[in-house]
Amino acid sequence: MAASSQLPSLDFLIACTLTGSELQEYNKIHYGRPDHHELTVKKSNQDNAEKNGFQISAYDFPARKEETRRPRIVKVGIIQNSIAASTDKPITEQRQAIFDKVGKIIEAAGEEGVNVICLQEAWSMPFAFCTREKQPWCEFAEPVNGPSTQFLKDLAIKYEMVIVSPILERDEVHGDTIWNAAVVINEEGKVIGKHRKNHIPRVGDFNESTYYFEGNTGHPVFETKFGKIAINICYGRHHPLNWLMFGVNGAEIVFNPSATVAGLSEHLWAVEARNAAIANSYFTCAINRVGTETFPNEFTSGDGKPAHKEFGHFYGSSYVTAPDGVRTPGLSRIKDGLLIAQIDLNLCRQIKDKWGFTMTQRLDLYAESLNKAIKHDFEPQVIRKK
Amino acid sequence: MAASSQLPSLDFLIACTLTGSELQEYNKIHYGRPDHHELTVKKSNQDNAEKNGFQISAYDFPARKEETRRPRIVKVGIIQNSIAASTDKPITEQRQAIFDKVGKIIEAAGEEGVNVICLQEAWSMPFAFCTREKQPWCEFAEPVNGPSTQFLKDLAIKYEMVIVSPILERDEVHGDTIWNAAVVINEEGKVIGKHRKNHIPRVGDFNESTYYFEGNTGHPVFETKFGKIAINICYGRHHPLNWLMFGVNGAEIVFNPSATVAGLSEHLWAVEARNAAIANSYFTCAINRVGTETFPNEFTSGDGKPAHKEFGHFYGSSYVTAPDGVRTPGLSRIKDGLLIAQIDLNLCRQIKDKWGFTMTQRLDLYAESLNKAIKHDFEPQVIRKK
Repeated sequence: MAASSQLPSLDFLIACTLTGSELQEYNKIHYGRPDHHELTVKKSNQDNAEKNGFQISAYDFPARKEETRRPRIVKVGIIQNSIAASTDKPITEQRQAIFDKVGKIIEAAGEEGVNVICLQEAWSMPFAFCTREKQPWCEFAEPVNGPSTQFLKDLAIKYEMVIVSPILERDEVHGDTIWNAAVVINEEGKVIGKHRKNHIPRVGDFNESTYYFEGNTGHPVFETKFGKIAINICYGRHHPLNWLMFGVNGAEIVFNPSATVAGLSEHLWAVEARNAAIANSYFTCAINRVGTETFPNEFTSGDGKPAHKEFGHFYGSSYVTAPDGVRTPGLSRIKDGLLIAQIDLNLCRQIKDKWGFTMTQRLDLYAESLNKAIKHDFEPQVIRKK
Repeated sequence: MAASSQLPSLDFLIACTLTGSELQEYNKIHYGRPDHHELTVKKSNQDNAEKNGFQISAYDFPARKEETRRPRIVKVGIIQNSIAASTDKPITEQRQAIFDKVGKIIEAAGEEGVNVICLQEAWSMPFAFCTREKQPWCEFAEPVNGPSTQFLKDLAIKYEMVIVSPILERDEVHGDTIWNAAVVINEEGKVIGKHRKNHIPRVGDFNESTYYFEGNTGHPVFETKFGKIAINICYGRHHPLNWLMFGVNGAEIVFNPSATVAGLSEHLWAVEARNAAIANSYFTCAINRVGTETFPNEFTSGDGKPAHKEFGHFYGSSYVTAPDGVRTPGLSRIKDGLLIAQIDLNLCRQIKDKWGFTMTQRLDLYAESLNKAIKHDFEPQVIRKK
């Protein structure tokens, strides 16, 4: 774990090791283009990042110029961060410490002209679901208009920025139930809606089904001033149908705010959100929290190992993929970060025209197949020796 | 293209460049394990490979020992090859030259004890669909019991091996129609069934819709002596629903015999079949042909460039992924090859138990969503400013 958690990233390792035509070949075959189209970040923001200990990187994804549509250039930002106060501190203190830290990163994004930003899953709290303790962690849950939204809406107005805020939601109207949700705040500081996590894990330390149910908000696409966006929360990235339905509903950018650890999923991380971008001809933004979180009481991980107080290492590595499968390097595995992608939304339809995946996807065939598959007396299509 | 087509593979580049703990870290994060569990190949087969100019590699994918089921160890083989005679030669001569070449590779697989082998898409012919010429290429089409099956069934019997043979199929019963199909021959040399390619491309030089329709054989899973296998032919790898239905029908191994070229899809290649293994908790075997094919008459590629006679470079790079997302290095980008994976099929259910993707996939929700989506008056779930 030690060596693993110290390596900034494979992207960094490759960029340090390969040179010249070998590096270009690697980049072309792996990332999809020989160089990363890196954009320059303002000196003041570089200084801000240096001072506050976060990484800042920016990349460009241009599209072909069209005759009948103007370019639709949007700056997308994603933020990964560790928690900012120890987990035995009072809840309001823990939350405020995160607000203070993430606020500075959002300001850097605002100064760079970012139009739409998304934070990590349950960004305003530690990822305490490993403990299976209801208190004090359930007290982090907040209504859609709660402290996180109040904090973010001022920033949204100040920078005319759409902010996606994934929180632990408390639904006071429906039995005080708790949900894993993402709130969409528009550039006027207004909540335009929310989405609830559709697929809930029961694996390793991710005992989330102890706290909340599968989401009941469908697959909403939010039509904002800066494009049609959707949110596939964390574990939903393992489910291609979840990605698909956001595409069917017209998404151009799908955020995947996550919390996942080394040793469990790191070798899957570069595959799933990227595959979704390819399969659905939209941009995906994979966001993972970073750092190691320690809890006051010991807990077990269902793996036969002794009780312990430490979650595994959240490995960050947030990245963006374009609809043509070209991706950015990831942010650091060990450090807070802001990744900016300047994208032309026109690329989505251009890629649909080129590859034809929506034309050839035969949804009618699969609607029929799934209708059969969900029946109790379903007989799989199995062919045996004649 | 020159440099690109000369690089054996990124896997090779990495293995030559990184060392020690850095190589182990790279392997762990990228491939899913610190070392590749390479298996030794018989000296006689190494000599055979050397003499006949193909690569041979073998890897092990063990599973946890269970109390109530025995291990189900199966050796899977995949073959990639260039064509063997120039495309202006008589059809029977071209085909025989491929038979001679591929026969030697199958023999090597047989000598290594391979139980199930799959060849590349339309393996017994050049990938002539770039030309849009009907003749002579349609003459390569053959009935299910045609020359390819006749050739392979003797090898199937000799080595007690299941062989998946992707061919251009001629259906003489239904209007002499042509299909892109895969024939499954069991270890007794009997054809147990066929599957037809479900999704047909219309991109770049892949003018396949000129020759055949979308397949009408559903998503069959073939229950063989060596596990439940299915075939997702080429372009179907871009369609997560195609992969899904093979999983729903119980597949443990899904082959993806393909033909695809550098400059078009190479940066997607390592993503899609691997994602399918993860999402569906089964083994996937991605197979791509290799080499550059030149045709007698010039053709255009729908990209504004001048007419030419050469298809792009088929980049090989065939690889296997386990249900836990761990993958092998790819075969060469420039050379014929045989890749063997010794797998324990029990890993599929073990991973379903661990990750729970089949439990959490909510097929009922998606059946309902797709039923709505395919209607002409479908209204996407879009949320706008209130």
